[in-house]
Amino acid sequence: MTAKDKDLNDLFLDTLKDIYFAEKQILKALPKMAKAAGSDKLRAAFEKHHDETEGQVERLEQIFEMMDKPARGKTCDAIQGILDEGKEVMDDYKGCEALDAGMLAAAQAVEHYEISRYGTLKHWAQQLGMKDAVRLLDETLQEEKKTDESLTVLAKDAVNLAAAA
Amino acid sequence: MTAKDKDLNDLFLDTLKDIYFAEKQILKALPKMAKAAGSDKLRAAFEKHHDETEGQVERLEQIFEMMDKPARGKTCDAIQGILDEGKEVMDDYKGCEALDAGMLAAAQAVEHYEISRYGTLKHWAQQLGMKDAVRLLDETLQEEKKTDESLTVLAKDAVNLAAAA
Repeated sequence: MTAKDKDLNDLFLDTLKDIYFAEKQILKALPKMAKAAGSDKLRAAFEKHHDETEGQVERLEQIFEMMDKPARGKTCDAIQGILDEGKEVMDDYKGCEALDAGMLAAAQAVEHYEISRYGTLKHWAQQLGMKDAVRLLDETLQEEKKTDESLTVLAKDAVNLAAAA
Repeated sequence: MTAKDKDLNDLFLDTLKDIYFAEKQILKALPKMAKAAGSDKLRAAFEKHHDETEGQVERLEQIFEMMDKPARGKTCDAIQGILDEGKEVMDDYKGCEALDAGMLAAAQAVEHYEISRYGTLKHWAQQLGMKDAVRLLDETLQEEKKTDESLTVLAKDAVNLAAAA
């Protein structure tokens, strides 16, 4: 196949591999974030999201299977950069009152990357007539949006607590 | 100042430097994206967003000035990763029918990173009682959301055009 032949099917598969890699990296990062969290609420939120992410990885594997392709990741520079930035905040603010606020911001950057990717994949799956994939991608998309909303609520608490400290 | 003393003011300034660096990188990337775009509509969208980004950089400089700090960026690994991924799509799909769909997805990943950062900064500025900064950050946040929405509309067109090709 020459480069000129690459179509939406290829783009869908490439992007599926990208988010599959990203979810696996997020799975590794979340326990470290939970351990570093200053408040019990934030720790619980990261632990809950870890469980949810395992389900999201399984959904992606189902889509690979539907496409008769091996579930394989493709290095995602974006998530690596976003997670590196989160690690930097954890190091720079260790023991500081603003640590949780910084970690929440980092987690929301992760969520927004995922929301953007799942929104795109769902839209392409619709165009490609992959009904079951649309359903699975939409389930994850709604979960990510909900997670982002609950992080916003926690972020307000974290800042108020820090301000009152 | 010891690490323990780092508070929300420090976090706000660090994140302001992060998004300032990011906007400058986006300013450099947009003309390349406009040049690579397959459709006139997408090229026009990238050119329009370039002009808008210049205004967003100026708003950030106003906030630095309000804080009596020099406007200075701080390497943002996240935007570098997101833009690298966009460059990869431009290279891999050059001359392919799916090029514009891929570039639109990359641009939406950029928008979502910005939406997440400006949302966080606006919230912190509110907590820190920086009323003028809240106004400036909200202006940019609304612009970014609008840009993301118009990219979604273009993405639907791009896929339909590619499918009909």
